[in-house]
Amino acid sequence: MKTDIAVVGAGGYAASELFRLLPYHPALGTLEAYARHPEETPHPTGVEVRPTERLGESRAGLVFLALPPDASRTLAPLLLEEGRRVVDLSGGHRLPDPLYRLTYGDDGTPTRPPGAYGLPEWFGDDVAKADLLANPGCYATALLLLLSPLLKSGVHVPFAVATGISGHSGAGRSRDAAHLLAEAMDDVRAYKVVQHVHVNEVEHVLQRRFGEAPELHFTPHLGPYARGILATVHVPLHVGEHELYTLMADAYATSPFVEVLPKGEQPRTRRVLGTNRAEIGLASDPRGWAVLTLALDNLGKGAAGQAIQNMNLMLGLPEELGLDHPPLVM
Amino acid sequence: MKTDIAVVGAGGYAASELFRLLPYHPALGTLEAYARHPEETPHPTGVEVRPTERLGESRAGLVFLALPPDASRTLAPLLLEEGRRVVDLSGGHRLPDPLYRLTYGDDGTPTRPPGAYGLPEWFGDDVAKADLLANPGCYATALLLLLSPLLKSGVHVPFAVATGISGHSGAGRSRDAAHLLAEAMDDVRAYKVVQHVHVNEVEHVLQRRFGEAPELHFTPHLGPYARGILATVHVPLHVGEHELYTLMADAYATSPFVEVLPKGEQPRTRRVLGTNRAEIGLASDPRGWAVLTLALDNLGKGAAGQAIQNMNLMLGLPEELGLDHPPLVM
Amino acid sequence: MKTDIAVVGAGGYAASELFRLLPYHPALGTLEAYARHPEETPHPTGVEVRPTERLGESRAGLVFLALPPDASRTLAPLLLEEGRRVVDLSGGHRLPDPLYRLTYGDDGTPTRPPGAYGLPEWFGDDVAKADLLANPGCYATALLLLLSPLLKSGVHVPFAVATGISGHSGAGRSRDAAHLLAEAMDDVRAYKVVQHVHVNEVEHVLQRRFGEAPELHFTPHLGPYARGILATVHVPLHVGEHELYTLMADAYATSPFVEVLPKGEQPRTRRVLGTNRAEIGLASDPRGWAVLTLALDNLGKGAAGQAIQNMNLMLGLPEELGLDHPPLVM
Amino acid sequence: MKTDIAVVGAGGYAASELFRLLPYHPALGTLEAYARHPEETPHPTGVEVRPTERLGESRAGLVFLALPPDASRTLAPLLLEEGRRVVDLSGGHRLPDPLYRLTYGDDGTPTRPPGAYGLPEWFGDDVAKADLLANPGCYATALLLLLSPLLKSGVHVPFAVATGISGHSGAGRSRDAAHLLAEAMDDVRAYKVVQHVHVNEVEHVLQRRFGEAPELHFTPHLGPYARGILATVHVPLHVGEHELYTLMADAYATSPFVEVLPKGEQPRTRRVLGTNRAEIGLASDPRGWAVLTLALDNLGKGAAGQAIQNMNLMLGLPEELGLDHPPLVM
Repeated sequence: MKTDIAVVGAGGYAASELFRLLPYHPALGTLEAYARHPEETPHPTGVEVRPTERLGESRAGLVFLALPPDASRTLAPLLLEEGRRVVDLSGGHRLPDPLYRLTYGDDGTPTRPPGAYGLPEWFGDDVAKADLLANPGCYATALLLLLSPLLKSGVHVPFAVATGISGHSGAGRSRDAAHLLAEAMDDVRAYKVVQHVHVNEVEHVLQRRFGEAPELHFTPHLGPYARGILATVHVPLHVGEHELYTLMADAYATSPFVEVLPKGEQPRTRRVLGTNRAEIGLASDPRGWAVLTLALDNLGKGAAGQAIQNMNLMLGLPEELGLDHPPLVM
Repeated sequence: MKTDIAVVGAGGYAASELFRLLPYHPALGTLEAYARHPEETPHPTGVEVRPTERLGESRAGLVFLALPPDASRTLAPLLLEEGRRVVDLSGGHRLPDPLYRLTYGDDGTPTRPPGAYGLPEWFGDDVAKADLLANPGCYATALLLLLSPLLKSGVHVPFAVATGISGHSGAGRSRDAAHLLAEAMDDVRAYKVVQHVHVNEVEHVLQRRFGEAPELHFTPHLGPYARGILATVHVPLHVGEHELYTLMADAYATSPFVEVLPKGEQPRTRRVLGTNRAEIGLASDPRGWAVLTLALDNLGKGAAGQAIQNMNLMLGLPEELGLDHPPLVM
Repeated sequence: MKTDIAVVGAGGYAASELFRLLPYHPALGTLEAYARHPEETPHPTGVEVRPTERLGESRAGLVFLALPPDASRTLAPLLLEEGRRVVDLSGGHRLPDPLYRLTYGDDGTPTRPPGAYGLPEWFGDDVAKADLLANPGCYATALLLLLSPLLKSGVHVPFAVATGISGHSGAGRSRDAAHLLAEAMDDVRAYKVVQHVHVNEVEHVLQRRFGEAPELHFTPHLGPYARGILATVHVPLHVGEHELYTLMADAYATSPFVEVLPKGEQPRTRRVLGTNRAEIGLASDPRGWAVLTLALDNLGKGAAGQAIQNMNLMLGLPEELGLDHPPLVM
Repeated sequence: MKTDIAVVGAGGYAASELFRLLPYHPALGTLEAYARHPEETPHPTGVEVRPTERLGESRAGLVFLALPPDASRTLAPLLLEEGRRVVDLSGGHRLPDPLYRLTYGDDGTPTRPPGAYGLPEWFGDDVAKADLLANPGCYATALLLLLSPLLKSGVHVPFAVATGISGHSGAGRSRDAAHLLAEAMDDVRAYKVVQHVHVNEVEHVLQRRFGEAPELHFTPHLGPYARGILATVHVPLHVGEHELYTLMADAYATSPFVEVLPKGEQPRTRRVLGTNRAEIGLASDPRGWAVLTLALDNLGKGAAGQAIQNMNLMLGLPEELGLDHPPLVM
């Protein structure tokens, strides 16, 4: 059975990735695209971009929102009332209201809570039933995949120190000169130091899921390449390396998209490029800390890939449907 | 007055950087190059590469060693006996013997301790008098420049969690396929996880200089670009942001090559490319930790640039001589 | 019906691309890998690499040769005798003997002529029937796709001036320091000037197919990126722009992999990355010359993708089978 | 003696390069910066950006114009009247009036002809005496350096077929999404096909200097890197390779910035990065054509470097003053 699908906010990189992948999805009926300014929006191959006002005429049963958080919060209730299911790729539905307002500095109208936080490896049952799904942030996905198995196993993690590096697509389609190739090559820099919105997302989700969360210290960086995230987490953890491997491998034993690498191997962003996969590497240092590393594609498992994985579960389809393409690199 | 200078081990990237910079140094007399296999060594412009065996005929009063640690340890004493001064760019003289052997897995002959560890911002007096100088490692330089002001100010730092990312020149001139452009583009990965030799270097130097050292947890990464290091250090530090700025700015107030950026600005590797400069950024998170970031060129302040800075001090020359070229980027 | 397939010479980039794509091919039975030195060959995911000597035990009905030309010429006849069909990705079977020897400087044993030169857009009938297929060179593919429609239409083309730029995967998996990321970034250079082997290939194939060939002047370049070729051909051509579009569009009207872009648009390597597609752009200058441009992925339509396209035709399968994956970029 | 210098139009890449180099120029007095919107203009280190209206208060004896062509043509006469000398980096003064209007589509006010076209290797005497100097285009510099020696030697060149590839800084500081790193990596494309304004510039300058010009067919490309141009010219030329070398080497025998490489070597953009140098490579194909290649930095010899070289000559200073810095790569 086919489902008609709409993407609202057709101009950003997450939307582009949806338009790259959805036409190859076996369960796709028609694919619609909406944007506030269709004439300024790059035309996705074979799909006409319509003005958002015409969304009421849509045949779509499921709608991906690739909009700023406040716009998603305004639009989602209307779509739900029309009986459509919604996957929100923004941060508009990831946090409960007071925390959302504090984190995003948005004092707009309240919205209803989502049916699920769309990290299927940890909230799969919620996802299947959700009408409104909050698709996780790219760094939040990486950090939650690394930290959740520790908390689930009952290990106490007082704090976690995380850094990450992302390609420029992670910064969105900004016209800031700092993102021009001529000014961004050879450049690495930290950004949003001590103020990245994914910190609250990670702590809140862990708290909700496991009843506790380590204090998270996180600094993201931007590097001279297009896509891919490498996240590295240091945690004080008096647990043997073998036990560490076991609890991590157990957590993802049945997960088609998360691979725990054998001891001594480290994840590489290159290998997950264009895929919905995440690779995890583990090491223990002699002083009783653990070093956890993870590679994912910020547009794949960090955004559009995960959104399609969630859509599959919401529609009762196999989790990997439309996501089992060759990686770009062998 | 001019000084004749020799570079031994002419084939690696640090040596290439010396050959890039030294011909523009106003105090250079003649410049000699030596390599074990001159015929396999790329010919530095205008300099004949001679076999290392002919080093005895050298006119050089100061010799840069760009060799593996064990080869430097073997060669340095011979050069010192001939009355030459030596700057060792390898790790061969940075650690005292038992620690060196443990760290580098080298059970070769002992060597004599160096006259100075060549981080002029903290050991300038030693440097000026040294006959044998141990030039610091690239990551060690970055981490020591960030941590030393804290320890000097008497702040207690129980531990520090550091990550860094380096361009491929930091991995040396390896023929490993993983360093080929076709396989390294788009790729970020951690390497030498929980075992980088600069950890011992940083802890040892801090201990010697300040009588204590935080426990250092450090994970380096490799990114898809040629040169430049961005290091990020998280420390639990109950010190106000203003005090943090003051102690860091005071530490480098007279330092020509280390710049503490104004509040809110972050270092960029691009701005230090091809220079001997380091840029430092500071931030405090609301939970009482500090986030310290630093950008340097791993071949500049992280290797050859610093080696020339040390040479200047050893020869009684102005510290910036031959190092005040335009950066590649404005 | 499934076919068992073997790839011989598992260590190069064209072989890697076959291993990236073949596991997703619906008609694949078992996939075998062979290499002279299996222990030095990166292990393709899920496929054991066996020593080439054990090829006799293979179950493969079709064998891809990703070997140097002389090795392909030695091995192909043995495989054919065993009743297997062969797709040779090297230059070993693209030229008739005296021209081959002259071009490749190889004075080894003669080989039998291939059943087809595997450019399906122009030799599709031969391809379907071939037991031994010569897979075209990457630049030859680009230049033949651009020039063939001109010759077919009867336009006289006295000469053609072509340049091309390729990513580093086009240079093969060489351990030459010039291909290390740290030495290849920011670098563009011409190579094999006035002596690229694809010049003879293009002229020979055009001569055979159309009875005449323009004198080809061709200079390839290498640029700082991993994969993709952009070829640009200038030809003196007194033909109107409209006629030019018509003859080119007609030539590829039924071709699933070659797209002639609308007037004013130019091909971009980025859009063909990871695909078997070629994009063509056309322009006429006011002085009666035509400027023809083409983008393809040197590992896709320039090597492994085209090899699979040929395999499909040889096996009586739909031409696009196993090649209709999403491009990496929308 | 020091000269006070102003740069008008402080926001583009050519201006950035002037601000990178001029502070290290030994003859610089004060350095002033002007822009139409100083508040939007990145602040060049240590130089206050003033509104262009305040240019009348300038102390500068020599003014660099880094403006669009029409703005340069408006401003230059005013500056000359005030007794200042002017170096125009735009195309505003490179072509005589009717050709300028045709080429740039500008029907603004006429301007006075410049005293010199600032290619010092061929117009050095004019340059020294000029009050108003037209600094050449980046591609025009490359093509004129390659073709001029042929014409000077009396060889007949009926036409020349040229292609070039430039880094993204060559496209200016455009906010077009196509120049964002996330969309430009891995991408090569031709641009301004059959309509690049430098074609008229090259033909006009050759005609004026040598009384004849080959018909030029030129297609520029954009590649995924920040700076550097590689130009490749094919010419039908019945001249022996030895003679070709001799005439090219003779032409630049006394030129400090143009190097003709030994036979068999090819120019590399990487080696000229950040310098005012150009490297030339030569080859003859067996069919009597010559292949001429040249590498320069589009912001160096292609813009700001050459502008400073011209300034030196205009001020009676040594040609290399302030331009003899180490290249970024050895």
